[in-house]
Amino acid sequence: MIPKSHPRYESLLLRDKMVKASKEGYLADSAMIAHGRGEAFDYLIGEKTTYPAKRAMYVAVAALLLSNNPVISVNGNATALACDEIIELAKSVDAKIEINLFYRTDDRVKIITKLYEDHGFKDILGTLDDDIEYLNDIKNNRASASKTGIYSADTILIPLEDGDRAEILKKSGKNIITIDLNPLSRTSKMSDVSIMDNIVRAIPFMTKIAEDLKTQEKSVLIELVNDFDNEENLKESLEQIKLKE
Amino acid sequence: MIPKSHPRYESLLLRDKMVKASKEGYLADSAMIAHGRGEAFDYLIGEKTTYPAKRAMYVAVAALLLSNNPVISVNGNATALACDEIIELAKSVDAKIEINLFYRTDDRVKIITKLYEDHGFKDILGTLDDDIEYLNDIKNNRASASKTGIYSADTILIPLEDGDRAEILKKSGKNIITIDLNPLSRTSKMSDVSIMDNIVRAIPFMTKIAEDLKTQEKSVLIELVNDFDNEENLKESLEQIKLKE
Repeated sequence: MIPKSHPRYESLLLRDKMVKASKEGYLADSAMIAHGRGEAFDYLIGEKTTYPAKRAMYVAVAALLLSNNPVISVNGNATALACDEIIELAKSVDAKIEINLFYRTDDRVKIITKLYEDHGFKDILGTLDDDIEYLNDIKNNRASASKTGIYSADTILIPLEDGDRAEILKKSGKNIITIDLNPLSRTSKMSDVSIMDNIVRAIPFMTKIAEDLKTQEKSVLIELVNDFDNEENLKESLEQIKLKE
Repeated sequence: MIPKSHPRYESLLLRDKMVKASKEGYLADSAMIAHGRGEAFDYLIGEKTTYPAKRAMYVAVAALLLSNNPVISVNGNATALACDEIIELAKSVDAKIEINLFYRTDDRVKIITKLYEDHGFKDILGTLDDDIEYLNDIKNNRASASKTGIYSADTILIPLEDGDRAEILKKSGKNIITIDLNPLSRTSKMSDVSIMDNIVRAIPFMTKIAEDLKTQEKSVLIELVNDFDNEENLKESLEQIKLKE
């Protein structure tokens, strides 16, 4: 048990979730390393959601609500940190959830499938018995996608995605939204909307935004999306990183 | 195999070493997360040894050479990344090596002991059959130290040390040198000499410095140590972190 008084309490709780997930066997070998990188960047922004991140979240939710077939892509890390929150967001914006693993193994897919089902989301895609297609005619696991999910999606939310995989998704012509604490990562740079935030803060916040934006005219959502400049917003995100004590 | 052309080649090699060590069973549960945090900071300094880090290394080596009983404290991460390099430095400055684990288990100690022995260093301390004392009368594993090693040391090099453990060592009145990529960490702030660098670059560089400083008068080494201001040097280290592309 971590004492609540510990100066790194919130961060240590997430660390425990990752250690637990690692023991349950559904993380990639280097998943904990990726988490550590995120920790460092989160520390540098003061572990708070910044204004540019909030702006990007409004645009992201608008884009998800405007899409015909939005999909939330989940991997081991996203599941370990925010399984319930992802399910809530998916329901709120009417998006599918697809298991999409850079290091795909049957075991990992099985465990993650069961987790979403146990947490109340039965129609998870990218499972072992799903129809799998290959993006951009790249016939390997890194380009695999569910036929009714990512393969035919117009907008994909990819929290914590690897750069190589993000590149394949981007090249397939889809609208890409990422949640990534590193504003300099290839995934952040490649995406159409890049939210520099911790997913445990961002995803519940996006669900709240969705409840608001669903009451707005479609034209408002379109304007939100059209007015957004991701490159400019990433620059502003970068400026939020404080190096002074 | 990682292709040498990969933009993150060096970093991925280290990641592979960590994954291998994890499978060999001698890392702490959250060791990979700590490695990831280091990766992020290394990325932000351009994965190069900075001038303030070099200055701190000269001071650190001078302090080690001036000490009566210098000890290099090693944990799982340091061993995974730089076992041979640590042995070379220890021989060069005539320091002991002691296994010093924040999450100490017999299994981890056994595997790490064997690694150093297999790599040619037979007199490793902190092993299962070593005489163990407790620093500051704190009777738990976090304060344990070898009687002839850290317990009686005057100067300790603690690469990649946890903040809680660093605090115990500092309070015991020892001269503390750390190698830590995060200049804002508690360990960095608490140490007498803080080297903001990747240990795979810093430790071989310190061995080279030792070969140079060993040919100098003792008064030169004393001057190096006395002229050094760690707080000021940490500030300069922090300024090396570049956030622009």
